[in-house]
Amino acid sequence: MFEAVELGRKVPKRDYDAQVPELRAMLLQAQVDLRGADFPVVVVLAGVEGAGRGELLNRLAQWIDMREVQVHAFDRVSDEELSRPEYWRYWRTLPPRGRIAIYLNSWYTDPLLDRALDGAKQARFEQRLQRIAQFERMLADDGALILKFWLHLSHKEQGKRLKKLADDKHTRWRVTPERMRRHKAYDHVAQAAETAIRLTDTSQAPWFLVEAKNTRYRDLTVARTIAEGLKNRLAQGPGATASLLPPIESTPPTTAKSMTVLSKIDLSASLRGEDYRAGLTAEQERVAELTRRSYTKGLSTVMVFEGWDAAGKGGIIRRVSAAVDARYTRTIATSAPSPEEKAQHYLWRFWRDIPRPGHVTIYDRSWYGRVLVERIEGYASADEWARAYAEINQFEGQLTDHGVLVLKFFIHISGEEQLNRFKERQKIPYKRHKITDEDWRNRDRWEQYEVAINEMVARTSTSAAPWTLVAGNDKKHARVAVLRRLRAALEARFD
Amino acid sequence: MFEAVELGRKVPKRDYDAQVPELRAMLLQAQVDLRGADFPVVVVLAGVEGAGRGELLNRLAQWIDMREVQVHAFDRVSDEELSRPEYWRYWRTLPPRGRIAIYLNSWYTDPLLDRALDGAKQARFEQRLQRIAQFERMLADDGALILKFWLHLSHKEQGKRLKKLADDKHTRWRVTPERMRRHKAYDHVAQAAETAIRLTDTSQAPWFLVEAKNTRYRDLTVARTIAEGLKNRLAQGPGATASLLPPIESTPPTTAKSMTVLSKIDLSASLRGEDYRAGLTAEQERVAELTRRSYTKGLSTVMVFEGWDAAGKGGIIRRVSAAVDARYTRTIATSAPSPEEKAQHYLWRFWRDIPRPGHVTIYDRSWYGRVLVERIEGYASADEWARAYAEINQFEGQLTDHGVLVLKFFIHISGEEQLNRFKERQKIPYKRHKITDEDWRNRDRWEQYEVAINEMVARTSTSAAPWTLVAGNDKKHARVAVLRRLRAALEARFD
Repeated sequence: MFEAVELGRKVPKRDYDAQVPELRAMLLQAQVDLRGADFPVVVVLAGVEGAGRGELLNRLAQWIDMREVQVHAFDRVSDEELSRPEYWRYWRTLPPRGRIAIYLNSWYTDPLLDRALDGAKQARFEQRLQRIAQFERMLADDGALILKFWLHLSHKEQGKRLKKLADDKHTRWRVTPERMRRHKAYDHVAQAAETAIRLTDTSQAPWFLVEAKNTRYRDLTVARTIAEGLKNRLAQGPGATASLLPPIESTPPTTAKSMTVLSKIDLSASLRGEDYRAGLTAEQERVAELTRRSYTKGLSTVMVFEGWDAAGKGGIIRRVSAAVDARYTRTIATSAPSPEEKAQHYLWRFWRDIPRPGHVTIYDRSWYGRVLVERIEGYASADEWARAYAEINQFEGQLTDHGVLVLKFFIHISGEEQLNRFKERQKIPYKRHKITDEDWRNRDRWEQYEVAINEMVARTSTSAAPWTLVAGNDKKHARVAVLRRLRAALEARFD
Repeated sequence: MFEAVELGRKVPKRDYDAQVPELRAMLLQAQVDLRGADFPVVVVLAGVEGAGRGELLNRLAQWIDMREVQVHAFDRVSDEELSRPEYWRYWRTLPPRGRIAIYLNSWYTDPLLDRALDGAKQARFEQRLQRIAQFERMLADDGALILKFWLHLSHKEQGKRLKKLADDKHTRWRVTPERMRRHKAYDHVAQAAETAIRLTDTSQAPWFLVEAKNTRYRDLTVARTIAEGLKNRLAQGPGATASLLPPIESTPPTTAKSMTVLSKIDLSASLRGEDYRAGLTAEQERVAELTRRSYTKGLSTVMVFEGWDAAGKGGIIRRVSAAVDARYTRTIATSAPSPEEKAQHYLWRFWRDIPRPGHVTIYDRSWYGRVLVERIEGYASADEWARAYAEINQFEGQLTDHGVLVLKFFIHISGEEQLNRFKERQKIPYKRHKITDEDWRNRDRWEQYEVAINEMVARTSTSAAPWTLVAGNDKKHARVAVLRRLRAALEARFD
């Protein structure tokens, strides 16, 4: 999930200076209009330690009229609060209609920390998240505009920030043992946050993941999202509710827009002849051994392959299949649904082929068609593909809960490389049939696909069922990279 | 919750015979129309042991064309099923569009029995219910019409049925140890069922509680609900989703309609002079002692009073207050919200007065105004009052989870008694102001209120925060009855 906000997005100072005046005007106008409106605004600022919630709040305070904004922090539960039901303190602070409240710590803080640091059970954690979802739905049903921000920093970047604070004698005091403890537990925090976001990201109370490395980018993104959220909502008039499509990733306000998870892939990665052969053989042997062992232990595996046309999925799948005993491997080539399949829920046909204990199912294209081709081509309505992310997460969650290893690969190639391959294929008679008009049309929609792929990774790459993005310009590199990832995941299963 | 389906509703044989032909025609027509429709129908038949799901299915099989209906029972999990994720077996059996599937055991069976009989934890149970809600929402979002029936029998009635089976040598074999075990665990089953229904009763997949004591009533009610659900949905045309208002209680198909939870109250109950004085004093003394003890232990109490105009709430509340130390008791008289309160969610003002540890808050009218006066007078939209049941259950759930004792009283009087009291008041100068035009208007809406009260009890009387319906025609009886209930609940707290 968080790989989609580790892209290095930033806003140069000049762009920032150019944008701020307009943004401030927009925010102040929205605040004026809000006064007479019939709904309150709830802003939750959450995020990893060191992501700068306090800094961001100070920035916002310069841009909006804080006399009409309540800020709530809840650093400690007071005795009086402890003696009431958990939500009493939050109810007391809710803003009336026409007002904004910003929560620095919120109803998410305790459940997250209890899970990440203090060993609260997963079931209990999910129960509390369920309460949160109910609470937010209740407010949203009553009209509240709810905007939730998760400010993200990588573990490395978090470490850097803490070190910088510690190195300066004036700021050293800010590096408390509690902060160091949270830094050390970064992976636990990230995993709990992922669960929390996944289970509470609704159309009525959406989460916005924000890359917090560049402070200008962070502050502009949050402020603009608030301004636009307010503006859109005010434009809808009384009685409206939040928009249907929760953009889990806020619209980047600058040229950073064209940056997606695909931009980070190093397409120059390649493998030469002997390295390739040696690597391939070694990985295949190991995968053969590990899948055999999985078979005897009854441990199943699901592999999903998605990628651009001509990205080389077929060649990769053949190399994987070659390593796994055909008696317990099935490859499902997903194409347009049959009439029987169309008469069912779109996930139905994929449930059918879930592997038996110890078996491996390889999906050559998959349920992700819903949020890729069906989204782009309009086969699924906006409503349908937007809710598919949660449906897919639930589906894969059931597999992983059952002990199935779920690996998802997206094979990425550049537009030029694709063009070369298309031309290549047209030259070779027996490959010519592989290029259709649709392939050419898809090329025209490259940018739309990039956006869809970025959102897919942001919303469905979970720690239990992660996406692996594979550089595919060099086919040999891609084949070995996939096998290596598979091998590592299989090994981890026996650790 | 289940008191609303222990009313003794029945259908005489003559009425039954008169209704069946029309119902069959309606069902068959709906089935014909369904063939060309773009949605599947999922019917879940659940209920307590002995409520006759099998019998009901046999009856339905006579009325509908079973060649187009799939029946699924899932008595035992097969080895193949055990080796796949839990929902695999259910996905396999889902009906295609245009078809009906009836589930005798369903995705509810295992979670319910695990919780009621095998000691599964509450958090784990709620997690599984959450999965069910997600699953059903996924199907409903895709168009499925989902109708869920809970067939209810009282513990006593269940015992009678089992005894009848055991007494007959031809049916004795049906009284298996497993069935006896479930009979013994009746309270656990009922409580788990209540939780399950509360957490999975949605507008998209509503539960219908059906009183199963009279088999004619049971069969007609279920069949008619299916027929009407189908008819309504077919009338909406393609792309529609389930109706917004989940009727937790199906519309009784006969004269049984006028029967509500209020019909069961024996309004002739009365207390005479000396019995009243002795009873009152004894209960008040005991309540004083128990609330003092609660105070020292920090255990809080919330009492809610609702009732018809002139039902005598005030007199009762005075007798309760007299028994509780004023230093830790507050009485909140709820009237129309102030401008400040109107600017907030309707529950906000009630959260404010949640008692501190050891204290008692008495609400003279309460948040239930949302589903009573606001519903009837149209101050709340249908959407608003319909979702209020779940919101109220969540609110009270947070209180009871925190250890607050929540008791809710509805004081019932007959229409004639109310009229007498109105006339009485008009005669006495200092009481005349208590009768307003509104009181007279409310009288005209008596039947609407009866329906609303019945639905309120069916949907919000939970084992943790139950409703107590009090016969109020005799004021003395009512006062002692309320104190007695309060005393018993306070005593139970120290058991």
